[in-house]
Amino acid sequence: MSHLDLGPGPEFDRIRSIEKALGPRAGELGDDCALVLVGDEFIALSIDLSVEGVHFRREWLSLEEIGWKAAAGALSDLAAEAARPEGLLASVGVPKAGDPGDVANIMRGVGEAAASVGGRVLGGDLSSAPVLTIDIAVVGRTARPVRRQGAQVGDGIWVTGELGGARAALASWSAGETPITTARRSFAHPVPRIGAGLWLAERGAHALIDLSDGLAGDAGHLAAASRVMIELALDRVPLHGAVPAAALKTSQLPAVFAALGGEDYELLVAMPRQFTSADAGALEREMGIPLTLIGRVSAGSGAVCRLQGREVALTGFDHFA
Amino acid sequence: MSHLDLGPGPEFDRIRSIEKALGPRAGELGDDCALVLVGDEFIALSIDLSVEGVHFRREWLSLEEIGWKAAAGALSDLAAEAARPEGLLASVGVPKAGDPGDVANIMRGVGEAAASVGGRVLGGDLSSAPVLTIDIAVVGRTARPVRRQGAQVGDGIWVTGELGGARAALASWSAGETPITTARRSFAHPVPRIGAGLWLAERGAHALIDLSDGLAGDAGHLAAASRVMIELALDRVPLHGAVPAAALKTSQLPAVFAALGGEDYELLVAMPRQFTSADAGALEREMGIPLTLIGRVSAGSGAVCRLQGREVALTGFDHFA
Repeated sequence: MSHLDLGPGPEFDRIRSIEKALGPRAGELGDDCALVLVGDEFIALSIDLSVEGVHFRREWLSLEEIGWKAAAGALSDLAAEAARPEGLLASVGVPKAGDPGDVANIMRGVGEAAASVGGRVLGGDLSSAPVLTIDIAVVGRTARPVRRQGAQVGDGIWVTGELGGARAALASWSAGETPITTARRSFAHPVPRIGAGLWLAERGAHALIDLSDGLAGDAGHLAAASRVMIELALDRVPLHGAVPAAALKTSQLPAVFAALGGEDYELLVAMPRQFTSADAGALEREMGIPLTLIGRVSAGSGAVCRLQGREVALTGFDHFA
Repeated sequence: MSHLDLGPGPEFDRIRSIEKALGPRAGELGDDCALVLVGDEFIALSIDLSVEGVHFRREWLSLEEIGWKAAAGALSDLAAEAARPEGLLASVGVPKAGDPGDVANIMRGVGEAAASVGGRVLGGDLSSAPVLTIDIAVVGRTARPVRRQGAQVGDGIWVTGELGGARAALASWSAGETPITTARRSFAHPVPRIGAGLWLAERGAHALIDLSDGLAGDAGHLAAASRVMIELALDRVPLHGAVPAAALKTSQLPAVFAALGGEDYELLVAMPRQFTSADAGALEREMGIPLTLIGRVSAGSGAVCRLQGREVALTGFDHFA
């Protein structure tokens, strides 16, 4: 498809206006990765911009963690395409007056994230900038990519891991508190689900997306790309251990708190209806990653979230909302 | 090579410290492009960060021109690898309070630059940021890349086009004046020398680099990567028409002014000694691009610039000098 199907919001309005401005100069935008066919396999490419004060603060994270998080978030797009990482390129902007060692510390974290999934740092660029700015372009390979489009009526919607940990850490920092260790780790040290993405693709995944904007928003993108409705039972969403206490402080129900939290970098996947909880158990046994059925695909459009059977209106993170 | 050979300066010290921090997690850094072998051809990748107030100002350029310049500068790295562009990915950061149409205007320029060399916009990311921030990752293909390393003693050093136009425009703006049209165009609308890069590769180019930091600095990188000395006769450097008047205001000799100017995005190439001015004439006839012999490769190290036979000490642009 050259048409861009995304969920609602001012950020996505801007992206739609870009598509319009580009016209035929645009490739197939709107998936987790761009794909370039070379010989008999695809090169999967994605780019992810992290800006100090928008995506992170120095008071919260070490420079190594800032580098890891930027790179892991970008590598997560390869997981969401079921691609095997080759490596990444990193552009880093740092204030001119900063410590000359800062860049090396950031890149140490970037390099660790790349190495953790079998990739390398292939190149980069360096500039001065008013705030720390890290842009990561990732490169992977796949003979059989899984796109956002492709979810079919009757598919089950599954999610890896537990949700809401990164938001729980953010909520603590925003309240001037120190996050609990496991929540802090979710935010600072997300793990790109490369192995799980490949595993799901091998088992016939119809459509795949990673959770960067939050479950509610990203399910909307999956639904829009696949031109189906996704119905989510929030009661089933696996919650990070820090969520109940953090949710209480916001007066939100824990499942709503988690569904609105971004940057979990777990995978949301539409699996054929034949795929069962027993099948899902194998992923947990093999890789230690839980896989939970949280919804289904039906005819229609949009993502519908229900809690105890009642519909709740939720939207994902939007940089310009 | 996994070792990084670059010229001197604080910016390149930072890059060397990154290489040290990365250790085996780094690929072959230090060329215009990273190369990934897929089947029987190479995927060439490069990334290039442009930051408002560092690389451009909004008072100087339209948003379309800012987009074009950022993309053309990145695509120039594919020219310097003798790669054919497939396309690019663009990360754009814009202030939250800005006009929602700004991003589309920037991307219109990015898309035009990509289309001008047969490429497309394959993907991107969008974020808020304190100043306009554009990071471009380019993707090309080549069966026979030309690296910075490979220059051999006895090679001629040639340069495409004319130098100093972008610096002449910058000098006018810095003095509160309006640049002449052709100089403004050199800065705002550089043309990636894709066709010339491929043409030179077909004729046996030994080593290739694009001029982004300035002739003096980039010749130093080529010399360092190839482990040779490059001797340049500045008297031979083809000058942009705006250079003499602009140089006069800085009290620099025109050839020195041009050799210190960055962002010309012309190609500097080491050709076998058999390659003659008659051969070079064919490039001008075929593509309208002059190719001028400005130096030679000899044993030793570093780039040596001479003017009327006397050595002059020059260095390239450094973000942290």
